[in-house]
Amino acid sequence: MSFDRLCIIGVGLIGGSIARAARLQGLSQVIIGFGRQEDLANLQAAKALGVIDDYSLDLAEAVNGADCVVIATPVATIKTILALLQPFWSAQTIYTDVGSTKSSVLDAAEQVFGEIPKNLIPAHPIAGAEQSGVNASVDDLFVGKRLIITPTETSSAKALQAVQGFWEKLGSVVSIMDAKHHDGVLAATSHLPHLLAFALVDMLGRKDEQSDIFKYAAGGFRDFTRIASSDPTMWRDICLANKDELVALLEEFKTQLGTIQNDLQSQDAQQLFQTFSYARNARQRFLDQFED
Amino acid sequence: MSFDRLCIIGVGLIGGSIARAARLQGLSQVIIGFGRQEDLANLQAAKALGVIDDYSLDLAEAVNGADCVVIATPVATIKTILALLQPFWSAQTIYTDVGSTKSSVLDAAEQVFGEIPKNLIPAHPIAGAEQSGVNASVDDLFVGKRLIITPTETSSAKALQAVQGFWEKLGSVVSIMDAKHHDGVLAATSHLPHLLAFALVDMLGRKDEQSDIFKYAAGGFRDFTRIASSDPTMWRDICLANKDELVALLEEFKTQLGTIQNDLQSQDAQQLFQTFSYARNARQRFLDQFED
Repeated sequence: MSFDRLCIIGVGLIGGSIARAARLQGLSQVIIGFGRQEDLANLQAAKALGVIDDYSLDLAEAVNGADCVVIATPVATIKTILALLQPFWSAQTIYTDVGSTKSSVLDAAEQVFGEIPKNLIPAHPIAGAEQSGVNASVDDLFVGKRLIITPTETSSAKALQAVQGFWEKLGSVVSIMDAKHHDGVLAATSHLPHLLAFALVDMLGRKDEQSDIFKYAAGGFRDFTRIASSDPTMWRDICLANKDELVALLEEFKTQLGTIQNDLQSQDAQQLFQTFSYARNARQRFLDQFED
Repeated sequence: MSFDRLCIIGVGLIGGSIARAARLQGLSQVIIGFGRQEDLANLQAAKALGVIDDYSLDLAEAVNGADCVVIATPVATIKTILALLQPFWSAQTIYTDVGSTKSSVLDAAEQVFGEIPKNLIPAHPIAGAEQSGVNASVDDLFVGKRLIITPTETSSAKALQAVQGFWEKLGSVVSIMDAKHHDGVLAATSHLPHLLAFALVDMLGRKDEQSDIFKYAAGGFRDFTRIASSDPTMWRDICLANKDELVALLEEFKTQLGTIQNDLQSQDAQQLFQTFSYARNARQRFLDQFED
Protein backbone atom coordinates (compact mmCIF):
# COMPACT_ATOMS: atom_id res chain seq x y z
CA MET A 1 0.00 0.00 0.00
CA SER A 2 1.56 3.23 -1.11
CA PHE A 3 0.43 6.45 -2.76
CA ASP A 4 1.55 8.27 -5.86
CA ARG A 5 0.80 11.64 -4.42
CA LEU A 6 0.14 12.40 -0.76
CA CYS A 7 -1.18 15.85 0.14
CA ILE A 8 -0.72 17.10 3.71
CA ILE A 9 -2.94 20.00 4.69
CA GLY A 10 -1.12 21.76 7.53
CA VAL A 11 2.56 20.85 7.69
CA GLY A 12 3.13 21.40 11.41
CA LEU A 13 4.36 19.05 14.12
CA ILE A 14 1.86 16.32 13.23
CA GLY A 15 1.60 16.89 9.48
CA GLY A 16 5.37 17.24 9.19
CA SER A 17 5.98 14.08 11.20
CA ILE A 18 3.51 12.17 9.00
CA ALA A 19 5.37 13.38 5.89
CA ARG A 20 8.76 12.44 7.35
CA ALA A 21 7.63 8.96 8.38
CA ALA A 22 5.78 8.37 5.09
CA ARG A 23 8.90 9.27 3.13
CA LEU A 24 11.08 7.06 5.34
CA GLN A 25 8.71 4.13 4.76
CA GLY A 26 8.41 4.84 1.04
CA LEU A 27 4.65 5.33 1.29
CA SER A 28 4.34 8.00 -1.40
CA GLN A 29 6.14 9.00 -4.58
CA VAL A 30 5.48 12.66 -4.02
CA ILE A 31 4.45 14.59 -0.90
CA ILE A 32 2.79 17.98 -1.31
CA GLY A 33 2.03 20.45 1.48
CA PHE A 34 -0.80 22.96 1.64
CA GLY A 35 -1.04 26.02 3.86
CA ARG A 36 -2.31 29.58 3.98
CA GLN A 37 -0.35 32.67 3.03
CA GLU A 38 0.60 33.09 6.71
CA ASP A 39 2.05 29.56 6.72
CA LEU A 40 4.44 30.35 3.89
CA ALA A 41 7.61 30.48 5.98
CA ASN A 42 6.72 27.17 7.61
CA LEU A 43 6.03 25.57 4.19
CA GLN A 44 9.32 26.90 2.86
CA ALA A 45 11.10 25.42 5.86
CA ALA A 46 9.32 22.10 5.28
CA LYS A 47 10.50 22.03 1.69
CA ALA A 48 14.04 23.08 2.61
CA LEU A 49 14.14 20.29 5.22
CA GLY A 50 12.99 17.78 2.59
CA VAL A 51 9.91 16.98 4.66
CA ILE A 52 7.73 17.74 1.60
CA ASP A 53 8.64 17.77 -2.06
CA ASP A 54 6.68 20.90 -2.76
CA TYR A 55 3.85 23.05 -1.49
CA SER A 56 1.07 25.21 -2.78
CA LEU A 57 -1.02 27.99 -1.26
CA ASP A 58 -3.73 27.06 -3.76
CA LEU A 59 -5.86 24.19 -2.51
CA ALA A 60 -7.05 23.06 -5.96
CA GLU A 61 -3.44 22.79 -7.08
CA ALA A 62 -2.28 21.12 -3.85
CA VAL A 63 -4.85 18.31 -3.95
CA ASN A 64 -4.83 17.87 -7.74
CA GLY A 65 -4.04 14.23 -8.50
CA ALA A 66 -3.54 13.30 -4.84
CA ASP A 67 -4.67 9.78 -4.01
CA CYS A 68 -4.55 10.59 -0.29
CA VAL A 69 -5.24 13.88 1.51
CA VAL A 70 -4.40 14.17 5.20
CA ILE A 71 -6.01 17.07 7.06
CA ALA A 72 -3.51 17.85 9.79
CA THR A 73 -4.85 21.18 11.00
CA PRO A 74 -6.28 21.97 14.46
CA VAL A 75 -9.67 20.47 15.25
CA ALA A 76 -11.51 23.81 15.10
CA THR A 77 -10.46 24.38 11.47
CA ILE A 78 -11.54 21.03 10.04
CA LYS A 79 -15.02 22.16 9.01
CA THR A 80 -13.52 25.08 7.10
CA ILE A 81 -11.02 22.79 5.41
CA LEU A 82 -13.76 20.34 4.41
CA ALA A 83 -15.79 23.21 2.95
CA LEU A 84 -12.75 24.36 0.97
CA LEU A 85 -12.12 20.80 -0.24
CA GLN A 86 -15.72 20.17 -1.22
CA PRO A 87 -15.54 21.62 -4.79
CA PHE A 88 -12.51 19.41 -5.56
CA TRP A 89 -13.66 16.31 -3.67
CA SER A 90 -12.76 13.20 -5.67
CA ALA A 91 -14.17 9.69 -5.34
CA GLN A 92 -10.71 8.38 -6.29
CA THR A 93 -9.02 10.03 -3.32
CA ILE A 94 -8.85 8.88 0.31
CA TYR A 95 -9.32 11.64 2.86
CA THR A 96 -8.37 11.41 6.51
CA ASP A 97 -7.66 13.77 9.39
CA VAL A 98 -5.83 13.79 12.72
CA GLY A 99 -8.24 15.82 14.88
CA SER A 100 -8.34 15.24 18.65
CA THR A 101 -12.13 14.84 18.66
CA LYS A 102 -13.99 12.73 16.15
CA SER A 103 -17.76 13.28 16.43
CA SER A 104 -17.06 16.94 15.63
CA VAL A 105 -15.35 15.91 12.38
CA LEU A 106 -18.26 13.68 11.35
CA ASP A 107 -20.72 16.45 12.22
CA ALA A 108 -18.71 18.94 10.18
CA ALA A 109 -18.62 16.56 7.20
CA GLU A 110 -22.36 16.01 7.40
CA GLN A 111 -22.95 19.76 7.45
CA VAL A 112 -20.64 20.39 4.50
CA PHE A 113 -21.61 17.41 2.32
CA GLY A 114 -25.12 16.59 3.51
CA GLU A 115 -23.83 13.13 4.38
CA ILE A 116 -20.49 11.75 5.49
CA PRO A 117 -18.42 10.96 2.40
CA LYS A 118 -17.57 7.23 2.19
CA ASN A 119 -13.94 8.06 1.49
CA LEU A 120 -13.44 10.29 4.53
CA ILE A 121 -11.87 8.14 7.25
CA PRO A 122 -11.39 10.09 10.49
CA ALA A 123 -8.36 9.18 12.58
CA HIS A 124 -6.56 10.40 15.70
CA PRO A 125 -2.93 9.67 16.50
CA ILE A 126 -2.43 9.83 20.28
CA ALA A 127 0.93 11.49 20.02
CA GLY A 128 2.13 15.01 20.30
CA ALA A 129 4.72 17.21 21.85
CA GLU A 130 4.89 20.60 23.47
CA GLN A 131 6.48 22.26 20.45
CA SER A 132 4.66 23.03 17.22
CA GLY A 133 5.56 23.74 13.60
CA VAL A 134 7.50 21.71 11.07
CA ASN A 135 10.77 22.35 12.86
CA ALA A 136 9.48 20.25 15.74
CA SER A 137 8.48 17.35 13.45
CA VAL A 138 10.36 14.07 13.76
CA ASP A 139 10.60 10.76 11.90
CA ASP A 140 9.33 8.55 14.70
CA LEU A 141 6.57 10.54 16.41
CA PHE A 142 4.03 7.74 15.88
CA VAL A 143 6.20 4.69 16.47
CA GLY A 144 4.61 2.52 19.14
CA LYS A 145 1.88 5.10 19.75
CA ARG A 146 -1.84 4.45 19.68
CA LEU A 147 -3.89 5.59 16.73
CA ILE A 148 -7.67 5.43 16.68
CA ILE A 149 -9.70 5.26 13.47
CA THR A 150 -13.41 6.06 13.73
CA PRO A 151 -15.17 4.92 10.55
CA THR A 152 -18.95 5.08 10.15
CA GLU A 153 -21.30 2.38 8.89
CA THR A 154 -21.08 3.78 5.39
CA SER A 155 -17.29 4.15 5.25
CA SER A 156 -15.56 2.52 2.29
CA ALA A 157 -13.86 -0.66 3.48
CA LYS A 158 -11.09 -0.10 0.97
CA ALA A 159 -10.43 3.44 2.19
CA LEU A 160 -10.48 2.23 5.80
CA GLN A 161 -7.96 -0.50 5.00
CA ALA A 162 -5.71 1.99 3.24
CA VAL A 163 -5.74 4.43 6.16
CA GLN A 164 -5.16 1.61 8.65
CA GLY A 165 -2.28 0.20 6.58
CA PHE A 166 -0.77 3.66 6.21
CA TRP A 167 -0.70 4.30 9.97
CA GLU A 168 0.55 0.81 10.75
CA LYS A 169 3.47 1.43 8.43
CA LEU A 170 4.14 4.69 10.30
CA GLY A 171 4.56 2.48 13.38
CA SER A 172 1.25 3.16 15.12
CA VAL A 173 -0.79 0.63 17.06
CA VAL A 174 -4.18 1.04 15.39
CA SER A 175 -7.55 0.61 17.10
CA ILE A 176 -10.92 1.01 15.43
CA MET A 177 -13.92 2.26 17.39
CA ASP A 178 -16.92 4.49 16.83
CA ALA A 179 -16.47 8.24 17.13
CA LYS A 180 -18.63 8.57 20.23
CA HIS A 181 -16.62 5.96 22.11
CA HIS A 182 -13.40 7.67 21.04
CA ASP A 183 -14.64 11.01 22.32
CA GLY A 184 -15.67 9.49 25.66
CA VAL A 185 -12.33 7.76 26.14
CA LEU A 186 -10.30 10.83 25.21
CA ALA A 187 -12.49 13.12 27.30
CA ALA A 188 -11.67 10.93 30.31
CA THR A 189 -7.96 10.37 29.82
CA SER A 190 -6.93 13.60 28.12
CA HIS A 191 -9.46 16.42 27.87
CA LEU A 192 -10.72 16.26 31.48
CA PRO A 193 -7.20 16.11 32.97
CA HIS A 194 -6.21 19.15 30.88
CA LEU A 195 -9.32 21.00 31.98
CA LEU A 196 -8.69 20.17 35.65
CA ALA A 197 -5.09 21.31 35.43
CA PHE A 198 -6.10 24.60 33.79
CA ALA A 199 -8.93 25.07 36.32
CA LEU A 200 -6.70 24.41 39.32
CA VAL A 201 -3.84 26.63 38.23
CA ASP A 202 -6.27 29.40 37.32
CA MET A 203 -7.80 29.20 40.80
CA LEU A 204 -4.48 28.93 42.63
CA GLY A 205 -2.84 31.57 40.45
CA ARG A 206 -5.26 34.09 41.91
CA LYS A 207 -4.38 32.97 45.44
CA ASP A 208 -0.70 33.16 44.55
CA GLU A 209 -1.10 36.79 43.52
CA GLN A 210 -2.33 37.48 47.03
CA SER A 211 -0.12 35.35 49.18
CA ASP A 212 2.74 33.95 47.19
CA ILE A 213 1.72 30.33 47.61
CA PHE A 214 3.63 28.99 44.59
CA LYS A 215 6.86 29.65 46.50
CA TYR A 216 6.00 26.64 48.63
CA ALA A 217 4.93 24.30 45.85
CA ALA A 218 7.15 21.32 45.17
CA GLY A 219 7.86 18.74 42.47
CA GLY A 220 4.48 17.04 42.78
CA PHE A 221 2.76 20.29 41.87
CA ARG A 222 5.10 20.79 38.95
CA ASP A 223 4.18 17.45 37.39
CA PHE A 224 0.50 17.71 38.24
CA THR A 225 0.22 21.05 36.48
CA ARG A 226 2.51 20.41 33.51
CA ILE A 227 -0.44 20.10 31.12
CA ALA A 228 -1.67 23.55 32.25
CA SER A 229 1.21 24.90 30.17
CA SER A 230 -0.45 23.53 27.02
CA ASP A 231 -1.58 25.84 24.24
CA PRO A 232 -4.76 27.66 25.40
CA THR A 233 -6.18 28.11 21.90
CA MET A 234 -5.78 24.47 20.96
CA TRP A 235 -7.30 23.28 24.24
CA ARG A 236 -10.17 25.75 24.13
CA ASP A 237 -11.05 24.32 20.72
CA ILE A 238 -10.67 20.67 21.77
CA CYS A 239 -12.80 21.22 24.87
CA LEU A 240 -15.51 22.98 22.87
CA ALA A 241 -15.43 20.28 20.18
CA ASN A 242 -16.02 17.65 22.90
CA LYS A 243 -18.16 19.72 25.23
CA ASP A 244 -20.98 17.24 25.74
CA GLU A 245 -18.67 14.51 27.00
CA LEU A 246 -16.73 17.01 29.12
CA VAL A 247 -19.77 18.61 30.74
CA ALA A 248 -21.01 15.15 31.75
CA LEU A 249 -17.61 14.13 33.12
CA LEU A 250 -17.26 17.39 35.04
CA GLU A 251 -20.62 16.70 36.64
CA GLU A 252 -19.46 13.23 37.61
CA PHE A 253 -16.18 14.56 38.98
CA LYS A 254 -17.92 17.25 41.05
CA THR A 255 -20.03 14.46 42.58
CA GLN A 256 -16.85 12.49 43.30
CA LEU A 257 -15.33 15.55 45.00
CA GLY A 258 -18.53 16.02 47.01
CA THR A 259 -18.27 12.45 48.25
CA ILE A 260 -14.68 13.04 49.35
CA GLN A 261 -15.71 16.28 51.05
CA ASN A 262 -18.27 14.30 53.05
CA ASP A 263 -15.69 11.64 53.91
CA LEU A 264 -13.37 14.37 55.20
CA GLN A 265 -16.15 16.10 57.16
CA SER A 266 -17.24 12.87 58.80
CA GLN A 267 -13.61 11.77 59.21
CA ASP A 268 -14.33 8.52 57.42
CA ALA A 269 -10.72 7.36 57.39
CA GLN A 270 -11.55 3.93 56.01
CA GLN A 271 -13.44 5.29 53.01
CA LEU A 272 -10.67 7.77 52.21
CA PHE A 273 -8.11 5.01 52.46
CA GLN A 274 -10.17 2.87 50.08
CA THR A 275 -10.50 5.69 47.53
CA PHE A 276 -6.78 6.48 47.65
CA SER A 277 -5.77 2.81 47.52
CA TYR A 278 -8.10 2.05 44.64
CA ALA A 279 -6.63 5.02 42.77
CA ARG A 280 -3.07 3.95 43.46
CA ASN A 281 -3.77 0.42 42.22
CA ALA A 282 -5.63 1.68 39.16
CA ARG A 283 -2.69 3.90 38.26
CA GLN A 284 -0.35 0.94 38.65
CA ARG A 285 -2.54 -0.94 36.15
CA PHE A 286 -2.16 2.04 33.79
CA LEU A 287 1.64 2.05 34.23
CA ASP A 288 1.91 -1.71 33.76
CA GLN A 289 0.67 -1.45 30.18
CA PHE A 290 3.84 0.46 29.29
CA GLU A 291 5.84 -2.58 30.41
CA ASP A 292 4.18 -4.91 27.89
CA MET B 1 24.75 26.37 67.17
CA SER B 2 25.17 22.67 67.71
CA PHE B 3 23.80 20.01 70.02
CA ASP B 4 25.48 17.53 72.34
CA ARG B 5 22.82 14.95 71.86
CA LEU B 6 20.20 14.94 69.11
CA CYS B 7 17.34 12.46 69.35
CA ILE B 8 15.43 11.53 66.20
CA ILE B 9 12.05 9.93 66.76
CA GLY B 10 11.35 7.91 63.62
CA VAL B 11 14.48 7.28 61.55
CA GLY B 12 12.85 6.97 58.13
CA LEU B 13 13.42 8.91 54.92
CA ILE B 14 13.04 12.30 56.61
CA GLY B 15 14.46 11.44 60.06
CA GLY B 16 17.38 9.57 58.48
CA SER B 17 18.12 12.42 56.08
CA ILE B 18 18.08 14.90 59.00
CA ALA B 19 20.55 12.71 60.89
CA ARG B 20 22.83 12.35 57.86
CA ALA B 21 22.86 16.08 57.14
CA ALA B 22 23.29 16.99 60.83
CA ARG B 23 26.31 14.69 61.06
CA LEU B 24 27.77 16.05 57.86
CA GLN B 25 27.44 19.61 59.19
CA GLY B 26 28.75 18.65 62.63
CA LEU B 27 25.52 19.77 64.31
CA SER B 28 25.52 17.16 67.09
CA GLN B 29 28.09 15.16 69.07
CA VAL B 30 25.81 12.16 69.31
CA ILE B 31 22.69 11.20 67.34
CA ILE B 32 20.26 8.73 68.89
CA GLY B 33 17.29 7.14 67.14
CA PHE B 34 14.01 6.00 68.65
CA GLY B 35 11.49 3.59 67.20
CA ARG B 36 9.03 0.89 68.12
CA GLN B 37 9.75 -2.83 68.32
CA GLU B 38 8.48 -3.16 64.73
CA ASP B 39 11.01 -0.54 63.61
CA LEU B 40 13.94 -2.56 64.98
CA ALA B 41 15.29 -3.73 61.60
CA ASN B 42 15.15 -0.16 60.27
CA LEU B 43 16.95 1.17 63.38
CA GLN B 44 19.61 -1.53 63.08
CA ALA B 45 20.09 -0.56 59.43
CA ALA B 46 20.35 3.11 60.45
CA LYS B 47 23.07 2.28 62.97
CA ALA B 48 24.91 0.00 60.54
CA LEU B 49 24.85 2.78 57.92
CA GLY B 50 26.27 5.22 60.47
CA VAL B 51 23.20 7.44 60.12
CA ILE B 52 22.71 7.30 63.91
CA ASP B 53 25.21 6.46 66.64
CA ASP B 54 22.77 4.33 68.56
CA TYR B 55 19.09 3.68 69.08
CA SER B 56 16.71 2.69 71.81
CA LEU B 57 13.24 1.20 71.84
CA ASP B 58 12.76 2.85 75.24
CA LEU B 59 11.66 6.47 74.87
CA ALA B 60 12.91 7.58 78.35
CA GLU B 61 16.34 6.23 77.47
CA ALA B 62 16.31 7.65 73.93
CA VAL B 63 15.53 11.22 74.98
CA ASN B 64 17.59 11.19 78.18
CA GLY B 65 20.05 14.07 78.04
CA ALA B 66 19.00 15.13 74.54
CA ASP B 67 19.16 18.89 73.98
CA CYS B 68 17.10 18.52 70.81
CA VAL B 69 14.35 16.04 69.97
CA VAL B 70 13.04 15.87 66.39
CA ILE B 71 9.72 14.10 65.92
CA ALA B 72 9.98 12.69 62.39
CA THR B 73 7.01 10.33 62.40
CA PRO B 74 3.88 10.59 60.21
CA VAL B 75 1.51 13.43 61.03
CA ALA B 76 -1.19 11.12 62.45
CA THR B 77 1.17 9.77 65.13
CA ILE B 78 2.41 13.08 66.52
CA LYS B 79 -0.22 13.34 69.24
CA THR B 80 0.69 9.87 70.48
CA ILE B 81 4.37 10.75 70.45
CA LEU B 82 3.74 13.97 72.39
CA ALA B 83 1.74 12.00 74.98
CA LEU B 84 4.59 9.51 75.31
CA LEU B 85 7.11 12.34 75.63
CA GLN B 86 5.07 14.26 78.18
CA PRO B 87 6.39 12.45 81.33
CA PHE B 88 9.99 13.15 80.24
CA TRP B 89 9.42 16.66 78.86
CA SER B 90 12.36 18.87 79.78
CA ALA B 91 12.55 22.67 79.80
CA GLN B 92 16.22 22.34 78.78
CA THR B 93 15.38 20.49 75.56
CA ILE B 94 14.19 21.89 72.22
CA TYR B 95 11.44 19.89 70.54
CA THR B 96 10.48 20.11 66.91
CA ASP B 97 8.64 18.01 64.34
CA VAL B 98 8.40 17.64 60.56
CA GLY B 99 4.65 17.02 60.13
CA SER B 100 2.97 18.02 56.87
CA THR B 101 0.20 19.92 58.68
CA LYS B 102 0.87 22.30 61.52
CA SER B 103 -2.40 23.36 63.20
CA SER B 104 -2.95 19.69 63.95
CA VAL B 105 0.39 19.55 65.80
CA LEU B 106 -0.44 22.63 67.87
CA ASP B 107 -3.90 21.21 68.64
CA ALA B 108 -2.33 17.90 69.67
CA ALA B 109 0.16 19.68 71.95
CA GLU B 110 -2.59 21.71 73.56
CA GLN B 111 -4.60 18.56 74.23
CA VAL B 112 -1.63 16.71 75.70
CA PHE B 113 -0.09 19.55 77.73
CA GLY B 114 -3.06 21.85 78.34
CA GLU B 115 -1.07 24.56 76.57
CA ILE B 116 1.51 24.60 73.81
CA PRO B 117 4.96 24.12 75.36
CA LYS B 118 7.22 27.15 74.72
CA ASN B 119 10.03 24.84 73.62
CA LEU B 120 7.99 22.97 71.00
CA ILE B 121 8.74 24.60 67.63
CA PRO B 122 6.71 23.00 64.81
CA ALA B 123 8.39 22.84 61.42
CA HIS B 124 7.75 21.36 57.98
CA PRO B 125 10.45 20.64 55.40
CA ILE B 126 8.89 20.72 51.92
CA ALA B 127 10.93 17.83 50.66
CA GLY B 128 10.31 14.18 50.23
CA ALA B 129 10.64 11.31 47.87
CA GLU B 130 8.60 8.37 46.76
CA GLN B 131 10.62 5.85 48.75
CA SER B 132 10.52 5.52 52.51
CA GLY B 133 12.71 4.09 55.29
CA VAL B 134 16.27 4.88 56.30
CA ASN B 135 17.65 3.16 53.20
CA ALA B 136 16.07 5.93 51.14
CA SER B 137 17.62 8.70 53.27
CA VAL B 138 20.24 10.94 51.71
CA ASP B 139 22.69 13.64 52.83
CA ASP B 140 21.21 16.47 50.79
CA LEU B 141 17.44 15.99 50.90
CA PHE B 142 16.88 19.49 52.29
CA VAL B 143 19.50 21.45 50.37
CA GLY B 144 17.85 24.37 48.61
CA LYS B 145 14.39 23.20 49.72
CA ARG B 146 11.83 25.29 51.54
CA LEU B 147 11.25 24.76 55.25
CA ILE B 148 8.43 26.44 57.12
CA ILE B 149 8.52 27.04 60.88
CA THR B 150 5.20 27.85 62.57
CA PRO B 151 5.88 29.23 66.05
CA THR B 152 3.11 30.57 68.29
CA GLU B 153 3.03 33.83 70.23
CA THR B 154 4.35 32.08 73.30
CA SER B 155 7.18 30.19 71.58
CA SER B 156 10.62 30.62 73.10
CA ALA B 157 12.64 32.95 70.89
CA LYS B 158 15.78 31.03 71.75
CA ALA B 159 14.23 27.69 70.76
CA LEU B 160 12.92 29.23 67.54
CA GLN B 161 16.35 30.59 66.68
CA ALA B 162 17.94 27.23 67.38
CA VAL B 163 15.50 25.36 65.13
CA GLN B 164 15.86 27.97 62.38
CA GLY B 165 19.66 27.84 62.59
CA PHE B 166 19.62 24.04 62.56
CA TRP B 167 17.57 23.88 59.37
CA GLU B 168 19.54 26.61 57.66
CA LYS B 169 22.69 24.59 58.30
CA LEU B 170 20.96 21.58 56.71
CA GLY B 171 20.66 23.77 53.61
CA SER B 172 16.98 24.69 53.82
CA VAL B 173 15.48 28.04 52.86
CA VAL B 174 13.53 28.85 56.02
CA SER B 175 10.27 30.80 56.17
CA ILE B 176 8.33 31.62 59.31
CA MET B 177 4.55 31.91 59.24
CA ASP B 178 1.63 31.04 61.44
CA ALA B 179 0.29 27.50 61.40
CA LYS B 180 -3.03 28.42 59.83
CA HIS B 181 -1.36 30.19 56.92
CA HIS B 182 0.96 27.22 56.44
CA ASP B 183 -1.97 24.85 56.34
CA GLY B 184 -3.80 27.02 53.81
CA VAL B 185 -0.77 27.29 51.54
CA LEU B 186 0.02 23.57 51.68
CA ALA B 187 -3.64 22.64 51.23
CA ALA B 188 -3.60 24.62 47.98
CA THR B 189 -0.27 23.56 46.50
CA SER B 190 0.05 20.03 47.82
CA HIS B 191 -2.92 18.47 49.61
CA LEU B 192 -5.60 19.54 47.11
CA PRO B 193 -3.57 18.40 44.07
CA HIS B 194 -3.00 15.01 45.71
CA LEU B 195 -6.68 14.73 46.52
CA LEU B 196 -7.68 15.64 42.96
CA ALA B 197 -5.27 13.10 41.50
CA PHE B 198 -6.57 10.34 43.78
CA ALA B 199 -10.18 11.36 43.06
CA LEU B 200 -9.68 11.39 39.28
CA VAL B 201 -7.83 8.09 39.07
CA ASP B 202 -10.38 6.48 41.37
CA MET B 203 -13.20 7.66 39.11
CA LEU B 204 -11.43 6.78 35.85
CA GLY B 205 -10.17 3.45 37.22
CA ARG B 206 -13.78 2.32 37.45
CA LYS B 207 -14.39 3.39 33.85
CA ASP B 208 -11.21 1.62 32.82
CA GLU B 209 -12.47 -1.62 34.30
CA GLN B 210 -15.44 -1.35 31.96
CA SER B 211 -13.94 -0.06 28.77
CA ASP B 212 -10.19 -0.18 28.91
CA ILE B 213 -9.72 3.57 28.64
CA PHE B 214 -6.20 3.64 30.16
CA LYS B 215 -4.94 1.94 26.99
CA TYR B 216 -5.42 5.27 25.23
CA ALA B 217 -3.92 7.52 27.90
CA ALA B 218 -0.66 9.24 27.05
CA GLY B 219 2.24 10.99 28.73
CA GLY B 220 0.19 13.94 29.94
CA PHE B 221 -2.03 11.60 31.93
CA ARG B 222 1.03 9.85 33.36
CA ASP B 223 2.46 13.08 34.78
CA PHE B 224 -0.89 14.43 35.90
CA THR B 225 -1.60 11.33 37.95
CA ARG B 226 1.89 10.62 39.30
CA ILE B 227 0.92 11.83 42.78
CA ALA B 228 -1.98 9.34 42.80
CA SER B 229 0.72 6.71 43.32
CA SER B 230 1.56 8.27 46.70
CA ASP B 231 1.13 6.30 49.92
CA PRO B 232 -2.63 6.08 50.68
CA THR B 233 -2.18 5.84 54.47
CA MET B 234 0.07 8.88 54.67
CA TRP B 235 -2.23 10.95 52.47
CA ARG B 236 -5.39 9.85 54.24
CA ASP B 237 -3.79 11.13 57.46
CA ILE B 238 -2.54 14.40 55.96
CA CYS B 239 -5.95 15.12 54.39
CA LEU B 240 -7.75 14.39 57.66
CA ALA B 241 -5.27 16.51 59.63
CA ASN B 242 -5.99 19.44 57.29
CA LYS B 243 -9.63 18.68 56.55
CA ASP B 244 -11.06 22.14 57.25
CA GLU B 245 -8.79 23.83 54.71
CA LEU B 246 -9.36 21.03 52.22
CA VAL B 247 -13.14 20.98 52.49
CA ALA B 248 -13.20 24.74 51.82
CA LEU B 249 -10.85 24.44 48.85
CA LEU B 250 -12.85 21.56 47.40
CA GLU B 251 -15.95 23.72 47.60
CA GLU B 252 -14.13 26.51 45.80
CA PHE B 253 -12.83 24.13 43.16
CA LYS B 254 -16.28 22.64 42.55
CA THR B 255 -17.53 26.18 41.95
CA GLN B 256 -14.65 26.77 39.54
CA LEU B 257 -15.55 23.57 37.65
CA GLY B 258 -19.20 24.65 37.56
CA THR B 259 -18.16 27.94 35.96
CA ILE B 260 -16.19 26.08 33.32
CA GLN B 261 -19.13 23.74 32.71
CA ASN B 262 -21.28 26.80 32.04
CA ASP B 263 -18.65 28.27 29.72
CA LEU B 264 -18.61 25.00 27.77
CA GLN B 265 -22.41 24.77 27.65
CA SER B 266 -22.76 28.33 26.41
CA GLN B 267 -19.72 27.91 24.12
CA ASP B 268 -18.08 30.94 25.67
CA ALA B 269 -14.82 30.54 23.77
CA GLN B 270 -13.41 33.82 24.99
CA GLN B 271 -13.92 33.02 28.66
CA LEU B 272 -12.40 29.55 28.26
CA PHE B 273 -9.42 31.05 26.48
CA GLN B 274 -8.98 33.56 29.29
CA THR B 275 -9.09 30.86 31.97
CA PHE B 276 -6.62 28.64 30.13
CA SER B 277 -4.29 31.55 29.32
CA TYR B 278 -4.34 32.85 32.87
CA ALA B 279 -3.49 29.34 34.09
CA ARG B 280 -0.65 28.96 31.62
CA ASN B 281 0.83 32.31 32.63
CA ALA B 282 0.43 31.55 36.33
CA ARG B 283 2.23 28.25 35.91
CA GLN B 284 5.02 30.05 34.07
CA ARG B 285 5.36 32.34 37.10
CA PHE B 286 5.60 29.22 39.26
CA LEU B 287 8.30 27.73 37.00
CA ASP B 288 10.26 30.97 36.87
CA GLN B 289 10.98 30.85 40.57
CA PHE B 290 13.09 27.72 40.00
CA GLU B 291 15.30 29.79 37.72
CA ASP B 292 16.21 32.27 40.44
